[in-house]
Amino acid sequence: MSTYRDEDPRLHDIKTKIRVVPNFPKPGIMFQDITTLLLDPKAFKDTIDLFVERYKGKNISVVAGIEARGFIFGSPIALAIGAKFVPLRKPKKLPGKVISQEYILEYGRDCLEMHVGAVEPGERALVVDDLIATGGTLCAAMDLLERVGAEVVECGCVIELPELKGRERLNGKALYVLVECFECCQ
Amino acid sequence: MSTYRDEDPRLHDIKTKIRVVPNFPKPGIMFQDITTLLLDPKAFKDTIDLFVERYKGKNISVVAGIEARGFIFGSPIALAIGAKFVPLRKPKKLPGKVISQEYILEYGRDCLEMHVGAVEPGERALVVDDLIATGGTLCAAMDLLERVGAEVVECGCVIELPELKGRERLNGKALYVLVECFECCQ
Repeated sequence: MSTYRDEDPRLHDIKTKIRVVPNFPKPGIMFQDITTLLLDPKAFKDTIDLFVERYKGKNISVVAGIEARGFIFGSPIALAIGAKFVPLRKPKKLPGKVISQEYILEYGRDCLEMHVGAVEPGERALVVDDLIATGGTLCAAMDLLERVGAEVVECGCVIELPELKGRERLNGKALYVLVECFECCQ
Repeated sequence: MSTYRDEDPRLHDIKTKIRVVPNFPKPGIMFQDITTLLLDPKAFKDTIDLFVERYKGKNISVVAGIEARGFIFGSPIALAIGAKFVPLRKPKKLPGKVISQEYILEYGRDCLEMHVGAVEPGERALVVDDLIATGGTLCAAMDLLERVGAEVVECGCVIELPELKGRERLNGKALYVLVECFECCQ
């Protein structure tokens, strides 16, 4: 069962475009697949518009997108609000000097890296990813930004799996999501 | 030495924002790093605008972006021209049923996958990546699209390394690039 957060009809339409793929990437995981959302140009545009309406005029100078699906949403948001786009990548993908942050995933352990010099102290940053599950990836992203002195204004995700309680892990940092998904998500 | 293709001042500005990182990902490779371009909101917007000006009104219904940097450019182009966005991903990343295409890289061997059903026969597709080197990745992307009956209208890249002759490998398919980079690129 999935729910959407308010009466904006765009949210309902977005929710219906997200496909659930059982047992990916391993048995028991009900994978929330946003690639089907991307196949509908109107629903994809609505998704970006909803974020842009929220973040425009908020003096955000950095949109940090998490590899790889966070790039798909973060890049157009950055362009629309006139912010720089900073890719947070898996190890050994960024060519310059990086800082690294390890984290524990829903299914495994991983690491995010950010280029040194990409973000200046005092910048206001938005973190973007497609989905928040346990929140480990977003926490690592926020840690990277805060280690270089940026202020994380909010994390924006298309989908939240509330039962995994990722929101509680964000240490009071704001989280904005378009669609909540229950039960289907463990 | 780098050159830019014509007198549009946006192209010169874009070129200056691309950083060359020597010996990445292995000795002898001069890596063209577009993350520094993304740090300049105007140059990043100019990059996307140049592609959108070229492809708007061309009846393109699919923008296929190659993981992962192709997502950063392909996603906003798709949104701006009202096309669907289809991510072409590394193996085992897409949760649904896929078709796969192996290819040989400048430095190694790899594989791209596309979701079955994402693209219909007869659709007109644009392939987007940050860079064309030997052209192997773009050829694999075109093969995937053509195997499902789509027509590849063009490949659009930010950077071309002409000395690696990737353009010749595209079997007469059109290639559009913003910036050419010579000598620094082997």
